[in-house]
Amino acid sequence: MNTPASLLDRVRVVLVHTTHPGNIGAAARAMKTMGLSRLYLINPSHFPDADADARASGANDVLDQAQVCSTLDEALHGAVLAVGVSARRRDLSHRMLSPREAAPLMLEQTAAGDVALVFGTEMSGLSNDELGRCQLLTSIPANPAYSSLNLASAVQVLAYELRLAAPGGDALPLPFERDPASLEDVERFYVHLEQVLVASEFLDPVYPGRMMQRLRRLFARASLEKEEINILRGILTALTPRKK
Amino acid sequence: MNTPASLLDRVRVVLVHTTHPGNIGAAARAMKTMGLSRLYLINPSHFPDADADARASGANDVLDQAQVCSTLDEALHGAVLAVGVSARRRDLSHRMLSPREAAPLMLEQTAAGDVALVFGTEMSGLSNDELGRCQLLTSIPANPAYSSLNLASAVQVLAYELRLAAPGGDALPLPFERDPASLEDVERFYVHLEQVLVASEFLDPVYPGRMMQRLRRLFARASLEKEEINILRGILTALTPRKK
Repeated sequence: MNTPASLLDRVRVVLVHTTHPGNIGAAARAMKTMGLSRLYLINPSHFPDADADARASGANDVLDQAQVCSTLDEALHGAVLAVGVSARRRDLSHRMLSPREAAPLMLEQTAAGDVALVFGTEMSGLSNDELGRCQLLTSIPANPAYSSLNLASAVQVLAYELRLAAPGGDALPLPFERDPASLEDVERFYVHLEQVLVASEFLDPVYPGRMMQRLRRLFARASLEKEEINILRGILTALTPRKK
Repeated sequence: MNTPASLLDRVRVVLVHTTHPGNIGAAARAMKTMGLSRLYLINPSHFPDADADARASGANDVLDQAQVCSTLDEALHGAVLAVGVSARRRDLSHRMLSPREAAPLMLEQTAAGDVALVFGTEMSGLSNDELGRCQLLTSIPANPAYSSLNLASAVQVLAYELRLAAPGGDALPLPFERDPASLEDVERFYVHLEQVLVASEFLDPVYPGRMMQRLRRLFARASLEKEEINILRGILTALTPRKK
């Protein structure tokens, strides 16, 4: 069965010549939050490193299992697709996709084998030689006046798109149990509300319709719960004008 | 006219009680990459701070213009919508949207005034009192086993969704000028290719169809340019078996 994990487990995140070890740790954290785990580091300037550990926060397992390679070819060995991440249009012959287009395409290809996202060094990105080893490019839409995402932020955005593209990956946290009011309860509340508003002379008993419609719309938007109906009716009872 | 900027300029990013100044700088950078500029800081532990400046990289203008407030109400003053960012389902009564749902809704509301994204403190998120000031919640889909995005990473993902939801915001970097081959040029190349393959006896002249179809598909995927057609035809000419 394809769970988000089974597809995301086939995605390698390859960081080429990363200069700041803090960025490696932050990238590991970004990966893990989205369910990615396979980090490949090509000639990192400093690794392992205390800064990487600190920024990884609870994602030290991703760092511990990271593969340190000396060439991009080594990191891509056995993969069926390498997608380069670039902040700018780099060359004529690559197809350039948005992350939202690239993510489902990458997951599709996991049926054939591992796929890789390749991130260049912080200052200058991927070299032409490194780009030549990628089949596709992806670029994160950005402010043309300042398009320089932090490395880990770029990993976060791509990992987020991969997670959303995986089956079930867009699931939000489970809701608390709600106990919605039945429609009958809600209708009884409206009857009660109208009685009280008429009794208080807030509503014209001959023509209550328009105001009641507005109040219905207001409470409809609130999707009342059973307990809330009880509270509101309690308030109405408390506010009902006593017969003189 | 609605440009991405004119809508994104109405979005406030509110960081409540941020502990690490580096996260403030990294959040400013994340904002600026997506075209957001209005940062509100509520009782930050350290600000201004050298760590914030360093992590902001080229986004120091966002830090310089940040509004430091002492209460959330102050930061939300005059705004028409406040969306709380939460890693988990926090309470019963809030509507919870994904970032992809929340972003277009927020931009719609900018027609009426400023909108705000509210991020809680690093360790514990938004308090119930702070949540009570938000009309909606949004949560980034995440690995249920480890859903703790770094603060600036969360800002990056939300800012990215806002940018993509803004008109024209999904634009990728402009391509280099391409000079695509005309379809006639491409057809002449196929004719030339077939002649050469027949002459070389690679193709059966009586039944060249199937192989030529495969070759057509291959070159179609490449979307050949004019210059590339010239190169390929030059190669064909060079490889044409000479008449004996």
